[in-house]
Amino acid sequence: MALPPEELSIIVNTGDDFTHLGLYIAPDLDSVVYALAGLSDPLKGWGRRGESWAFMDALKGLGGESWFQLGDADLAMHVERSWRLASGATLSEITAHLCQALRIGVQILPMSDDPIRTRVLTDLGWLDFQEYFVRQQCRPTVQGFKFVGAETARAQPGALAALARGDLRAIVICPSNPFVSIEPILAVPEILAALRKSRAPIIAVTPIIGGKAIKGPAAKMLKELGLDVSAAAVAGRYAGLADGFLVDHTDEMPDPLEGITFFKAATLMTNDADRVQLARATLRAADTLGADQAS
Amino acid sequence: MALPPEELSIIVNTGDDFTHLGLYIAPDLDSVVYALAGLSDPLKGWGRRGESWAFMDALKGLGGESWFQLGDADLAMHVERSWRLASGATLSEITAHLCQALRIGVQILPMSDDPIRTRVLTDLGWLDFQEYFVRQQCRPTVQGFKFVGAETARAQPGALAALARGDLRAIVICPSNPFVSIEPILAVPEILAALRKSRAPIIAVTPIIGGKAIKGPAAKMLKELGLDVSAAAVAGRYAGLADGFLVDHTDEMPDPLEGITFFKAATLMTNDADRVQLARATLRAADTLGADQAS
Repeated sequence: MALPPEELSIIVNTGDDFTHLGLYIAPDLDSVVYALAGLSDPLKGWGRRGESWAFMDALKGLGGESWFQLGDADLAMHVERSWRLASGATLSEITAHLCQALRIGVQILPMSDDPIRTRVLTDLGWLDFQEYFVRQQCRPTVQGFKFVGAETARAQPGALAALARGDLRAIVICPSNPFVSIEPILAVPEILAALRKSRAPIIAVTPIIGGKAIKGPAAKMLKELGLDVSAAAVAGRYAGLADGFLVDHTDEMPDPLEGITFFKAATLMTNDADRVQLARATLRAADTLGADQAS
Repeated sequence: MALPPEELSIIVNTGDDFTHLGLYIAPDLDSVVYALAGLSDPLKGWGRRGESWAFMDALKGLGGESWFQLGDADLAMHVERSWRLASGATLSEITAHLCQALRIGVQILPMSDDPIRTRVLTDLGWLDFQEYFVRQQCRPTVQGFKFVGAETARAQPGALAALARGDLRAIVICPSNPFVSIEPILAVPEILAALRKSRAPIIAVTPIIGGKAIKGPAAKMLKELGLDVSAAAVAGRYAGLADGFLVDHTDEMPDPLEGITFFKAATLMTNDADRVQLARATLRAADTLGADQAS
């Protein structure tokens, strides 16, 4: 562990959330929750380890929609969250409750309790995110994105409180898809304002190593949008916001980019030792920048 | 098979239905559907055979309510039905759709598309049916029943149409709990009126053999309500309505009861041969009474 759990707050994208078969599904929140509860499936890269599929098989037998895979154990999360939402609880209250049940000490916060939905402009027209991501398996060519509801959404209050702390050591933009995982968060006006206001160093970590995305469609999206498939291109998305950017130690150091200090680190995470080591490298970079800013 | 599937319509109690974890659960409809789809669990006596429980285990891990068991495959039924209901389909439309998907040729009809809820008056006060039946495991002493919503509920139109057929050979009150499985159906005014109006013989089959209920709390309820635990006591519930009543061939023939002709038959069903044989005996009794009525 690089930090005691109570010193970390994670603000999570909810733009991928959708309602399917009447269930509210929050894929990014679930990924973070399962990871921190030690329940993730390291092979599939999503969902729970040791998952079974009797529900899906039975659903197919009833003629139900089967394009979105719902594991038997994973379903418990969706059912529990859905009825609580329907009973009037907020997404963040439910997330806190689930984290407590799973003994997760880290604070996990949806970026907003208001609905924000990522839509993807493609050669097939505007698609809901899960329509693009799962049903179409990212095949359509991407031309742009919008985050419906973001402009009027309130930030989750705990997220604003975490960002407003005077003793905040670092704000980390995790190695993730800039377009559909990070920018929906930045699209919440109160969050962007809080990031701009904070005096803590903002450090981003590359999701691109050696011209490839570690996971998901980030490289395909960069290419289709006419951008380089490189750490520098991702860093460019955070220009004017990020103070530091970690590129992989196997990649070239990018050309200077206004306002951003580049650092090298081993950014590929295949096990917990890798994760701790990258977290420490990120904090070191933040501390370096923090000391510079303070001087 | 005693009848071609298209010659049989089954009107099913929905008084046990309830909403749990945001899911609409219709236990009696499910029992009938699973039985006719060949999916029933013959050992448990409810739910699907070969069921798995990963959902329930995960739900417990999330601190969810675990008093009502939901199997992984069974969940598909509840999820599919619930989202269709929320989308505006009626319970009977959904039931027809599910039967088609499961290639069930028999017509399965909920008694009503309007909500009717069985409540049980006990020494603990009024309890929702599933609260009494599952959560309290039928332990409270029963004093009475009510079927909330029944008086104003419309009968399911197909059920009325089936009962109104001039060529109807028989109306069978299946061997089931009179208080909580049959009487909720009779509590729907349009159904009771249609039964009274029909010229087809109405034949009930005993759920009590040798002073015991084959399944469930019927014997306990009879006793607690001060009635004999006997076929005759059950027949008494249908006085003025039933024309015939099948008692088990191992039991004594009951004393005469106004309007009801008693027949003996092997009523214990442990396999499909038993079921076909009892169905045939029931039809024979109906035909006997039908011929009498016609003469």
